This record gives sequence, structure tokens and C-alpha cells, in this order.
Amino acid sequence: MEYLNKIGAAAKKASYELSALSTDKKNEALRLIAEELIKQADYIIEENKKDLEAASAAGVKSNMLDRLMLDEKRIAGIAEGVKQVAALSDPIGEVIHAEKRPNGLLVAKTRVPLGVIAIIYEARPNVTADAAALTLKSGNAVILRGGKEAIRSNIALGNIMRQALKSCGIDENAVQVIDDTSRETSTALMQLTDYVDVLIPRGGAGLIRSVVENAKVPVIETGTGNCHIYVDGECDIDMALDILYNAKTQRTSVCNAAESLLVHKDVAELFLPLAQKRLDEKNVEIRGCEITQKIIECTPATEEDYYTEFLDYIISCKVVSGIEEAVAHINEHNTGHSEAIVTNNYANSQKFLREVDAAAVYVNASTRFTDGFEFGLGAEIGISTQKMHARGPMGLNELTSVKFCIYGEGQIRK
Amino acid sequence: MEYLNKIGAAAKKASYELSALSTDKKNEALRLIAEELIKQADYIIEENKKDLEAASAAGVKSNMLDRLMLDEKRIAGIAEGVKQVAALSDPIGEVIHAEKRPNGLLVAKTRVPLGVIAIIYEARPNVTADAAALTLKSGNAVILRGGKEAIRSNIALGNIMRQALKSCGIDENAVQVIDDTSRETSTALMQLTDYVDVLIPRGGAGLIRSVVENAKVPVIETGTGNCHIYVDGECDIDMALDILYNAKTQRTSVCNAAESLLVHKDVAELFLPLAQKRLDEKNVEIRGCEITQKIIECTPATEEDYYTEFLDYIISCKVVSGIEEAVAHINEHNTGHSEAIVTNNYANSQKFLREVDAAAVYVNASTRFTDGFEFGLGAEIGISTQKMHARGPMGLNELTSVKFCIYGEGQIRK
Repeated sequence: MEYLNKIGAAAKKASYELSALSTDKKNEALRLIAEELIKQADYIIEENKKDLEAASAAGVKSNMLDRLMLDEKRIAGIAEGVKQVAALSDPIGEVIHAEKRPNGLLVAKTRVPLGVIAIIYEARPNVTADAAALTLKSGNAVILRGGKEAIRSNIALGNIMRQALKSCGIDENAVQVIDDTSRETSTALMQLTDYVDVLIPRGGAGLIRSVVENAKVPVIETGTGNCHIYVDGECDIDMALDILYNAKTQRTSVCNAAESLLVHKDVAELFLPLAQKRLDEKNVEIRGCEITQKIIECTPATEEDYYTEFLDYIISCKVVSGIEEAVAHINEHNTGHSEAIVTNNYANSQKFLREVDAAAVYVNASTRFTDGFEFGLGAEIGISTQKMHARGPMGLNELTSVKFCIYGEGQIRK
Repeated sequence: MEYLNKIGAAAKKASYELSALSTDKKNEALRLIAEELIKQADYIIEENKKDLEAASAAGVKSNMLDRLMLDEKRIAGIAEGVKQVAALSDPIGEVIHAEKRPNGLLVAKTRVPLGVIAIIYEARPNVTADAAALTLKSGNAVILRGGKEAIRSNIALGNIMRQALKSCGIDENAVQVIDDTSRETSTALMQLTDYVDVLIPRGGAGLIRSVVENAKVPVIETGTGNCHIYVDGECDIDMALDILYNAKTQRTSVCNAAESLLVHKDVAELFLPLAQKRLDEKNVEIRGCEITQKIIECTPATEEDYYTEFLDYIISCKVVSGIEEAVAHINEHNTGHSEAIVTNNYANSQKFLREVDAAAVYVNASTRFTDGFEFGLGAEIGISTQKMHARGPMGLNELTSVKFCIYGEGQIRK
């Protein structure tokens, strides 16, 4: 596809320049981007209004319209985020390990950018600026393909960032927004092996599936979270109620929200009625197994429910015989995101930490903490649910690769 | 494919047990495997003979037959390699970083196995034992799919290793050898997303291409090396001759051998005749650009030649105008493996290290050093030529992922 090849080649070319940029230069560009976003807020809002009108006319749901909407306050927040990225330390050039080998070679494992990063995401224009800031700081060129509902907003944001790069003397193709939001172009982007070093999809289960099916470039899967809270036989019931309520209801549309509750049979009769009462405060629908149905009134759960990331005021529920069944159930049904046990039993806490296969495994805390800021990374480009390259919240380091730089004096291999 | 699903499910099951094995237990198994390989050498040699006879009858070339052949000495070498892996330190369980967050949560980033690793490789039975040893030590289950010419040898090696695991009380499905070497099964293995966490192909350009085309599981590309030696305008000519000769001829069939020579125009007339004389010692065919052809007698190079990993006594050659053209030519034609500059110019050495896009970039040394042992990793499962997850020689650490273990006291998100 010629359109994408041109974008890919331009990104690759820019990536070589970016990899050698000084930290000062990158920060100068980030600060100018932040300034210009605020100065040109009217232009962004104008384009965003067109997106909102088109989306509204197309019958897009109100919670999605809310994610799409930009106003002065939100733009100020986006600009602030870009400034914060400027304040983070630059990962590029760090010598991770250097060793003088017996033959005199100095082998220095050095942190370098990945190169060209493609990001496919939903109609959330804030991601456009966040992702561009993080990729720029980590010395990567980025190709941004956002949801079609946000296309005008994304182009406006892209234009402002590209102008700012240009006036700093940086190749503006460091940041490119794809203006063709067709599915074909999206699929072709997933297969642009000549130019794209890594593809990061940010979105729902459908997007992730499509990427796994179609991608030929290396991918970091992110974001789907079928997260469990397991309430163990020996535990602080009040703590369990607080954690369940927080993980399920504090924000339902996010990937680290709880979608499933497992309860040890010994505490099920005590815990489930209290849990129901607590979840009733937010009208959470419980879909329970047969034993759950005997203890509380609830919707019967299907096997499908246990695999579902509801992102809504719904939770699946199952009474289990103990830690073994809990761990096996989680490993069978989860998406490798965040899992929590509430327990006072030491051996069970250790077993859960060790055997549950997920990016983040909690003892006695809400799954809602899986997040770059909460983990102290400073910012994040997404939460990896795969095991290769990066797992869990991905900060600047996760947008880098390594290069072995070897300093010789004429050594040859014997 | 039912056959592979069964293997995948068994591997996944074994992987959970493996991830929790103590270092002592893993080392005990490795030492027993090493012992049994030596004790049962006759059985291995017998099966290997059948492979050799079949391959020979099928007209397989002698250098490939040599790679396939096992005798007592080679088996002793393989066993020694397994023992050496037992002596390496265990990466699993290392706490890479732990931080007490302001809310009291202790977030510990911990090294864990990847899970199930699939390896597709050529008819080199030594890889069967090497790969199994490294994956076992790093707590991973492995599915081994070797070249069909080595199938009997691989099954024999697999049987011995599985027996040893069993007698140590470890799930023998930690190591599985695929006995169906059809292309369909190989493709299905590349798409076994339910069970395979990472696929590592080890082989030539054809295998790597097939994997990039067909794989749906995460892949670490390895091994193709179109490596360059760039002889800069200011340099020690004798050093350049030694490095070129070593990189091209010390072993031609390996991925870190040089395949292309770039020469600065200022030294071309001096260097090329000397280089030809040196390479003539091993009857190396030079395929040169037009300028090269004016200076020495050689075969004219095609554009295709500059993209080719010959793995033979052939080298492409181009005279370039300077460091800029050298770097651009390399980044256009290389496979991201190993690249070397021979120079006494400081600025050029730095530019080369910074701008050449490859796993290993050398100043004044032979590319032949790109190797796990030479870099001090102790052992390697392959050399990654991609940027994600691992780049360059991959040791035990590169066979791991991370898990965030979070220790709470009832924290919920505000």
C-alpha cells in the first residue's frame, strides 16, 4: 500500500535522527508542544466539535462521546501530561551493563530506541498527545492510528505537534497521524514489516483479537483485563468487602477493574450476602454459580460470563473449594492482567503470588492500582498483558531496546 | 489440530509446576540428564545412524550431514553443555526492583519464566539438548520441533531427557519433541496462541520468513546475519585486513560471519588489492561494485548480492564515499545482526556505534564475537535480530518475563 509505505519510510528516516537527539533537544520540543497545545486550544476544540457532531449523528453512545470530548480544561491536562514527560529522565544511552572481556573487548549493553512504533487506539484524542510525547522522549518515531470518530481532533493535535517539532529543527515525521481510518489501512499497518518495529494496540478485546490475527510486525498486546478478586477462607471480611467494592465500582470502564469474584466455600455464606448488599449501592448485577445462587438471589452465570470483561456494573461470581481451585480458575479464564487475593493465610498468599499467571498479582489490595503512575513509572503508554518484552504498565524503558556496542583494538576470533 | 493442542495443554500444565521448582531441583535434573546422555550414548548413536542413512540416501549435502552427525565425543560435548547450564545462576525469582509506594503498597517486580517456549530449528540434534537445558533452567516448558532429517536423534534425546525428568519427580512434559515434522504441523505450532507464549525460530532466512508470515504467537527472530565490515578512510590497514579475513573466513556457515565489505574511497586503491590477496588464501569470491571492478578483478555485484547472506566463501564489496554512505548502505541492506567499522577516526567510530541499526556494533574488532559465551552470558539459545524483548545473544535472562507482586494491607484506590 503506497500510502502506508510512504508514511513508514518517512517514520524510519525520522527514527534515525531521533535516536541521536540530545535529551535537551527532546525536552525543548516537548515543552514547545505543551505550549502550543494551550495556545491553539481553540483550533483543537473547533475540530473536536466536528468530531462530536458527526459521532453524535452516527448514534455513538454518551460514555464514548465523553471520552472523545475536549475542552480547555482537558487540553490543559493533556499539555500538563506532555510537560511531565519532559521532566522524566531520558532512558536512551543508558549503559545497562558493560564488561571488559578477557580478550580486551569492552562490551557495553546500551539502551536505544525501538525505532518506529505504531499505535492503534480508540477514539480518545488524549492518547494522541500522550503517546507522541512518550515515544518522542524515548527517541522513537510514531505512527498514530486513532479511532475514526476522533479523526479531526487527532489531525489537529498532530498538526500542532508537527509544527512544534519543525520549529525545533526536528524531522516532523517523528509524529505522523494516519488520516485514512479504513479497516484495510489499519490491517496494512499491522503488516508493515519493512518499517514498523513494534505495534502497540490500545483498545478492547475486538481490536486485540484482530491484531493477533492479522499482525506480521511484532506486537505488544495491552489492556484487556478480566481481573479477579479471590476471597480466601481465612481473611478480614471487611477488608475483602472494601477491596471488592473498590475494584468493581470505583471505575468500571477500565482494564484493571474487577470482573469476577471467587469466594472460598468456608466464608461464602457469610461473605456473599454482605458483598451483595455493598454492591447494591451501585446496582451491580451479580452473575453467580449454582452455589452462589443458593446463598443470594442473583442471575445465573454462564461459562461465557467467566471469560467476559464486562467493563460495566456486572460481576461474575463463583464459590470455590479453596486456593487450588481459585488459582486454576483464574489461570483458565483470565487475560493476564491483574489478580488479587484477600487472605490472612501466609502459605496461600505465597501460592497465589507464585502460581497466578498475570502481569500484576496482589495480596490484600485492589486491582485498580495496576497503572504506571501508581507503580512509580511516571507515565505509561499502556499495560502489557503479554509476557514478551514488557509486562504490566509500560513506561519509557519499555519503549526501548538494547544495542551491544563493542570497543576493540583489532581483536579477531581464534 | 488435536495433536498439537494435546502437546500444548501438557506443556502449559508442566509450565506451572516448573515455574515453582527450586533451583536445586532443576540442577539435579540437569545433572541427571547429562549423566544419562553419556550412559545412553549407544542408543543415541544408533538412532542418529538411521537419520544419517536416510539423509544420505535423500541426497543431503555433506556439510549438513556433518551437522547432523553425533558420535561419543559430540555427545560428551552436549552433556558437558547441559552440566554448564546447571552451574549458571538461576534467574527465576530475582526481584529486579522493589519499591514501597506512598500508600504503603510494596510493588516488587520479579523475574518469572515466560511459560511455554516453542523452538523450530534445523537438523542439528545438539540444539535439542541445549535448548531443553536452557528452558528447563529458566523454568519454562519447551516444545521442540527440529528438522525432519534429525527426527530419530531428536526423539532419542527427548526420551532420555524425559526419563531423567520423571525420575527426579518433575513433569516430563516440561520437554516435548514433536514427532510429526510435516509443514502443516509446523505452521499450526506457529499459531498455537492458546498455549505457546513465545516461539523462537532458529534457522535460515527461509524459516524466519515463514515464521514472520505465519506466526500468530509472539516470536523472537534469530540468526540471519548479513554482516558488514566497513574499512574507513583513516585506519590501520593491517588491522582491517586481519578483521576482514577473520570475519569472512574463520567460519563461513555462521550468522556472525561477514558477508559484505565496504571500503572508503580514499583507501580503496590501497586496500582492495591487499584484501583480495588475503581472501585468495581461502578462495573467497569477491562480488564488487563498478569502482571495485576498476581496482581489482572480480565478479560484478548485483543489488541482490548486497542483500544476501552467503554463508559461503563469497563476499559482496562496495566502495563508498565515506561514513554517511556506509551507514546508510548498512541500514538499508543489513539484517540487524553484527556490523563493524575499522577506523582511527574518533567521530566516525561514535557515529557508527550510534547510527548503525544492529544488535551488535563493533569498532575495530571482528563480527565473529557476537555470541553468548564471548559476551559473557554463559550460554545462549540464539541471537535475536529483532528489537523487542531481546536483542543480540540471548541467555537465561532473555528466557524470562516479569511479574509485579504487590503486597498490601487492604489498600483501595481513591
